[in-house]
Amino acid sequence: MIVVMKPGATQAEINAVIQRAEGLGVKTHPIYGDNRTVIALVGDLTRISREAFNAMDGVHETVRIQEPYKLSSRTAHPHDTIIEVMGVKIGGPEVVVMAGPCSVESRAQIIEAAIGVKEAGAKILRGGAFKPRTSPYSFQGLGVKGLEYLAEAREVTGLPIITEVTTVETLPIVAEYADILQIGARNMQNYGLLHAVGKVQRPVMLKRGMSGTVEELLMCAEYIVSNGNYNVMVCERGIRTYETSTRNTFDLNAVPVLKQRSHLPVVADPSHGTGYREYVPAMSRAAVAAGADALILEIHPDPDNAVSDGRQSLDLKEFADLMTSLRRIAAALDRSVAPAQPAPLATVAPAPLVKAIA
Amino acid sequence: MIVVMKPGATQAEINAVIQRAEGLGVKTHPIYGDNRTVIALVGDLTRISREAFNAMDGVHETVRIQEPYKLSSRTAHPHDTIIEVMGVKIGGPEVVVMAGPCSVESRAQIIEAAIGVKEAGAKILRGGAFKPRTSPYSFQGLGVKGLEYLAEAREVTGLPIITEVTTVETLPIVAEYADILQIGARNMQNYGLLHAVGKVQRPVMLKRGMSGTVEELLMCAEYIVSNGNYNVMVCERGIRTYETSTRNTFDLNAVPVLKQRSHLPVVADPSHGTGYREYVPAMSRAAVAAGADALILEIHPDPDNAVSDGRQSLDLKEFADLMTSLRRIAAALDRSVAPAQPAPLATVAPAPLVKAIA
Amino acid sequence: MIVVMKPGATQAEINAVIQRAEGLGVKTHPIYGDNRTVIALVGDLTRISREAFNAMDGVHETVRIQEPYKLSSRTAHPHDTIIEVMGVKIGGPEVVVMAGPCSVESRAQIIEAAIGVKEAGAKILRGGAFKPRTSPYSFQGLGVKGLEYLAEAREVTGLPIITEVTTVETLPIVAEYADILQIGARNMQNYGLLHAVGKVQRPVMLKRGMSGTVEELLMCAEYIVSNGNYNVMVCERGIRTYETSTRNTFDLNAVPVLKQRSHLPVVADPSHGTGYREYVPAMSRAAVAAGADALILEIHPDPDNAVSDGRQSLDLKEFADLMTSLRRIAAALDRSVAPAQPAPLATVAPAPLVKAIA
Amino acid sequence: MIVVMKPGATQAEINAVIQRAEGLGVKTHPIYGDNRTVIALVGDLTRISREAFNAMDGVHETVRIQEPYKLSSRTAHPHDTIIEVMGVKIGGPEVVVMAGPCSVESRAQIIEAAIGVKEAGAKILRGGAFKPRTSPYSFQGLGVKGLEYLAEAREVTGLPIITEVTTVETLPIVAEYADILQIGARNMQNYGLLHAVGKVQRPVMLKRGMSGTVEELLMCAEYIVSNGNYNVMVCERGIRTYETSTRNTFDLNAVPVLKQRSHLPVVADPSHGTGYREYVPAMSRAAVAAGADALILEIHPDPDNAVSDGRQSLDLKEFADLMTSLRRIAAALDRSVAPAQPAPLATVAPAPLVKAIA
Repeated sequence: MIVVMKPGATQAEINAVIQRAEGLGVKTHPIYGDNRTVIALVGDLTRISREAFNAMDGVHETVRIQEPYKLSSRTAHPHDTIIEVMGVKIGGPEVVVMAGPCSVESRAQIIEAAIGVKEAGAKILRGGAFKPRTSPYSFQGLGVKGLEYLAEAREVTGLPIITEVTTVETLPIVAEYADILQIGARNMQNYGLLHAVGKVQRPVMLKRGMSGTVEELLMCAEYIVSNGNYNVMVCERGIRTYETSTRNTFDLNAVPVLKQRSHLPVVADPSHGTGYREYVPAMSRAAVAAGADALILEIHPDPDNAVSDGRQSLDLKEFADLMTSLRRIAAALDRSVAPAQPAPLATVAPAPLVKAIA
Repeated sequence: MIVVMKPGATQAEINAVIQRAEGLGVKTHPIYGDNRTVIALVGDLTRISREAFNAMDGVHETVRIQEPYKLSSRTAHPHDTIIEVMGVKIGGPEVVVMAGPCSVESRAQIIEAAIGVKEAGAKILRGGAFKPRTSPYSFQGLGVKGLEYLAEAREVTGLPIITEVTTVETLPIVAEYADILQIGARNMQNYGLLHAVGKVQRPVMLKRGMSGTVEELLMCAEYIVSNGNYNVMVCERGIRTYETSTRNTFDLNAVPVLKQRSHLPVVADPSHGTGYREYVPAMSRAAVAAGADALILEIHPDPDNAVSDGRQSLDLKEFADLMTSLRRIAAALDRSVAPAQPAPLATVAPAPLVKAIA
Repeated sequence: MIVVMKPGATQAEINAVIQRAEGLGVKTHPIYGDNRTVIALVGDLTRISREAFNAMDGVHETVRIQEPYKLSSRTAHPHDTIIEVMGVKIGGPEVVVMAGPCSVESRAQIIEAAIGVKEAGAKILRGGAFKPRTSPYSFQGLGVKGLEYLAEAREVTGLPIITEVTTVETLPIVAEYADILQIGARNMQNYGLLHAVGKVQRPVMLKRGMSGTVEELLMCAEYIVSNGNYNVMVCERGIRTYETSTRNTFDLNAVPVLKQRSHLPVVADPSHGTGYREYVPAMSRAAVAAGADALILEIHPDPDNAVSDGRQSLDLKEFADLMTSLRRIAAALDRSVAPAQPAPLATVAPAPLVKAIA
Repeated sequence: MIVVMKPGATQAEINAVIQRAEGLGVKTHPIYGDNRTVIALVGDLTRISREAFNAMDGVHETVRIQEPYKLSSRTAHPHDTIIEVMGVKIGGPEVVVMAGPCSVESRAQIIEAAIGVKEAGAKILRGGAFKPRTSPYSFQGLGVKGLEYLAEAREVTGLPIITEVTTVETLPIVAEYADILQIGARNMQNYGLLHAVGKVQRPVMLKRGMSGTVEELLMCAEYIVSNGNYNVMVCERGIRTYETSTRNTFDLNAVPVLKQRSHLPVVADPSHGTGYREYVPAMSRAAVAAGADALILEIHPDPDNAVSDGRQSLDLKEFADLMTSLRRIAAALDRSVAPAQPAPLATVAPAPLVKAIA
């Protein structure tokens, strides 16, 4: 950390800074310039607050040199973390595709979606049971019923499921059903929730907040990891800017930045990132080309009749086409995307399914 | 709502939109232009989701005409809401000043601060006991101990207290001590928490999220109000933009916008809004001039040694000077700010205080 | 300047940085930490580019400590600059109000506006003759004809005029008519134009670009000042953010920040800043309270029929009312706004005016 | 266009809107809702200003339905525009790579760079002679000398050159040397310059401004096209947001959005977009995957000693490696990137080069 003094700072003010720093066990190196003095602080600063210095008399500002996160940092942990969920490895050479509807709407809908995305090559099923919604008057999700339907879809297809947890109170029930817990953008800095999922033995996908920086995203991951849960993946899903031609500004740059700074797997969400289904294929390809370890995509058997986010959902045919092109992009980078597996499922699944629904 | 069709939309696609809208009990008015068709929807649309139409084939976009909030809207409730807390009225002709430290650090600190701000004319004491912090390694607040100290400070000064609640689990204990519950910027869209404070009989101050729009802020207020708690005030505290000369971009424009659209009292927080104590006086005066009903200010007896936010805290002398100038601004608008009351407190308070601490 | 090396930087890389810096006549102070080395550079760095160091092997980043502008800086020039135009002083105790229509539309319109704003207490007349417009199909201003009408309005009222110059080619003709040259937001970084107005003996009002930082605004002022024209005032007019309830986000915080960093007079433009006439009065009052030296306001005798920016223009009655309240705010700050002077003008002006138009 | 009236708008106000619209030759369809009235305007609205209606009494806002640009729009011109420069086709199946240094620094530097980028497969040489710089104290480019060196580099390599034009006065000389004129981000809305390049017979690459929307970018392209120059390509180069881990936020989403809305070729600039050389390869691959028609990249024979933008420049070896991977990505999309051609140039070029420099 560098403490930058104001132009006319007195020697007494400079000494006060030095004294406080050394009282905290840190070495100081004052440098006297023509116009101002700066004081370099050297040592372990992770637990030393910049605020303590920012507020002192004669201090203009402080400049951080080291990263404020530790366990999430690649400096501390140079090798890529690989998270394994029911045999699916996220963070390795395979680019994993998670797909499914925004909301679980019915048993039939989620099972149809699950079969469809599995046939096209998806390895994980997404679907929301507890939905955080901007309007109190909107559909808020099926809740536990939705979790049960997801579990059925998992049974039918063998796909692990990822679903959002929005509160500490519902965490136990969501963790009982989910294979991966999703923390949504609005909850990125819900520290109570981060703390709680840090205590649970379930992989977590943490989404970047709408105005979260890359650094803040990693600080939030640090909340989870420092509570004992190392299986965290971080997800770029679009940030808020002045541009309105897309719903959010999908900040794909975050992918190489995150890969450089952290060892955690990086997921990209072009559906929320762009908000329009016509831009999802191009930006999915771009995300793979940028180095994402996984994609999470909104797919709906009938987007026109989706209860939520239909505008950004692909139908099953569009998804299958996209997967074909993703395989080619991944191959061009010496990575892979799982192959389509249409036939077996189509013939096997219907039977138990019809029974289950009936 | 206006549904805008794509240039080449077919009559079948147009009919599908009309059919769906009428199925939802809404009247439709299609208008056929040279290049495209638009369909106006007329009726009660509060519970009708734009998403349902956005996703339909042939639809380019939908445009909302009506406000999506109802109970918080001035259209529904033309008169200013006035919230009364221990005799202090927020939303009326008096501009109420809430002041105190970012964090409660000790019994002595909060009591000294409380006496100081009361003497200068503050009507409400602020202080954080549960602190949401960016880093898991930072001071997280004194918790319940902090609430107890706040209660003592209230007893000594007679000032009602406002303090932040960060989780549903700690809501009961915070509500037991607090006179006003603060929902912080990071939790603006923590719907679980909004729902919970909507069920509690305590006034709530809801802060705008770092990337929240004015409309979203009112939607979040709607979550609280629609759960039965009508005593909600909304607070502008700075938004995130590209500018770095201030910690946030304090968006004072939100004050007249909120006053126009909603009947809820509007609070301004120039301390977080600017992040630097040297800009707080000018922007406090500006906030009163812009029409804010209340200010919330960070004040610390010794900002240089504050545990958090010292850089943006005024000391007691600076605060008293600011209050003097605020009184003049308020008077220029035919409003008022409470007068200073230095003598009585200074002589009365010390005695019980020494006793209480010993 | 601080050069921050990457964690694993070699001694050779560190030496290369030191050598380059010393070759540029600057002293170096390397500080060896546990994880990384930083090198402080001390001396006159105004002409030394950070880029030269940013790109070197082993360098992580550079951090600037000194301000990059010199002549515009308050450090270099502690006293407020006061600009005098036809006897009107901008930057002193009086808060000067500049007012008039967005575009000069006709001789009658600008003369009516000029008389109206003068009667209400405005000291400078604004009006656009050359208009930069987003659409090539929009009205682009009356050009030289507009300048002539402005000159007539000046003759009738005695008000100095401010008008925008958009290109180097039209600068001579605009400078012939204008008392103050306005550089618009879109041209803040049009360095050719800044260079040219720096050579002209006319005061300049430089508007902040839609995504300009305060620092960039002062760097652009530096372009003008360093070319010899010291009569520069800087103007906050709203920045681009994600918020859409106002046309721009009027960043009033820039007023105290600019006053602290620079000695140049600071103007505020609440009309463009908010974009809606209903918010202009509150934000004008706030701008005065925040410490602006001048306001520039869009006023139109008939806003409903304005060719441009009618939505954000006040009519003459609204303007006169606003001026009344601004006087009270200014007085509360021990500043002043010029009094209304209705009677004399009303009886004197018409005669020559009728003649001039006929 | 939809004119949305305020809730309490009177019938007289509604009639005034209708009358004005019909006076402009446009048909009107008023729709009377429960709370408010909206009036749809149908007909050719390109030359009708929303402002004229925005400002009318009783009007809340206007909503545009049609795109405000015409000649640049894909609706008007469904087929991709292909721009040909010295045999190189931009906008067709080949993804064209433009590469070279930020600034032309010397004859030797630009010729070395030109040979290097040609060998790696670049088809166009970039290099700045007139440089717009944030600080008046920074290197401002070699000017005409720089153009001459570029011309020499073209002679040696056969590569067409793209270089920036910053003012109307220097346009004739720049157009004499350049094969493609670049309009930089800061000049996107310099309408005088846009107008002037619209009259010149040279292809233009127009960069998106730092806070330009996609729509504004196309409006600025419209300025050029509507002046007669149809050879315009638009370039995404990063926008300004709150995120600081990259120099700008490279908004790759603009690529599919621009391709959908316009027929003009789309160029991507990952060098300025990210600002850090370590992110350029990933984002270049992503840009190709997102559908860009061309890339423009900063390459320097010796980035550590570059006069400007070294931090974001690749060296020749890194560039050659990147080109190899781009070829694979392009192939995965059934497009192509030109092959490397190392041998011939390496043996042929040196001889005349030594002579030319001596």
